[in-house]
Amino acid sequence: MIKKDFPVEDVRRFLEPTPTVLVTSAYKDKQNIMTMGWYTVMEFVPSLIGCMITGSNYSFGLITKSRECVINIPSSDLAKKVVAVGNCSGADTDKFTSIGFTAEPASIVKAPLLKECFASFECKIHDSKLINAYNFFIFEVVRAHVASRPKFPETIAYRGDSQFVLSGKNIRIHSDK
Amino acid sequence: MIKKDFPVEDVRRFLEPTPTVLVTSAYKDKQNIMTMGWYTVMEFVPSLIGCMITGSNYSFGLITKSRECVINIPSSDLAKKVVAVGNCSGADTDKFTSIGFTAEPASIVKAPLLKECFASFECKIHDSKLINAYNFFIFEVVRAHVASRPKFPETIAYRGDSQFVLSGKNIRIHSDK
Repeated sequence: MIKKDFPVEDVRRFLEPTPTVLVTSAYKDKQNIMTMGWYTVMEFVPSLIGCMITGSNYSFGLITKSRECVINIPSSDLAKKVVAVGNCSGADTDKFTSIGFTAEPASIVKAPLLKECFASFECKIHDSKLINAYNFFIFEVVRAHVASRPKFPETIAYRGDSQFVLSGKNIRIHSDK
Repeated sequence: MIKKDFPVEDVRRFLEPTPTVLVTSAYKDKQNIMTMGWYTVMEFVPSLIGCMITGSNYSFGLITKSRECVINIPSSDLAKKVVAVGNCSGADTDKFTSIGFTAEPASIVKAPLLKECFASFECKIHDSKLINAYNFFIFEVVRAHVASRPKFPETIAYRGDSQFVLSGKNIRIHSDK
């Protein structure tokens, strides 16, 4: 999917509703993909995202060593592949070839963009204070790439227990004041 | 809305998709309601939720002093009221009476449950380490109250710039393995 540069201070447009995302990472000759649902926008400028990445994930080591990752947003037509990513480990599986994702070079970080995703946000660790206590990473989005259309692709968000909720209609609500 | 006790370790069912929530707080003779969209589930047991609450919010003082709050989830039919909550300040407005929300006593904390919301999670501050640097609160959900049905009420999530996305269809996706 062709993506264009997007203002990093506006990534909340896609991340505040917190769709399930695919986080890519790379260190030396290893790279991996993991699913992530536990994260939040934390600031506009710098563009900060707080993320839970547990130590049992193969990606944890790649990210703590490289201090970088890419947050990619899959649309709902990739749901089966997203579940597949979440159900195997990069320790013994090359998820790119076995599940079918295409790594593309990023602009700033070494972790790859996922070609099949409509948005990819290049991130660097901004604050590592809560990694030891909670596995909580604070990333800064340093470059954002977003497909021009559709404006808001349908996404999925996990609820646990194999259940997902699809994103629905987009609406504007203005204040009465 | 009549709500029943719900296991605190399962609140991710409602909070992982990160609908816009209404946070209630109370300290001495003051109470307030604020909107919140920047938060994430952090742990199952204890049931931890990380939340951004900026210092400019009137609720910030009530929460830091009482060390408690309630996270209430409004369904989409309350969207206009949610926007109204976000567009005035508890410093000069009693949002309960002016917007029309009903405070009900909680079980453990002093902050009230909102009767009109389908889920209400009583919270206590679990870790305040990142409040000064980021306005980031880590709460423990100490009691959860959820309406029995519908199972998944339609909710709203903010994207910024007056735009919201409604929650859509709920689906199950099983792993092929």
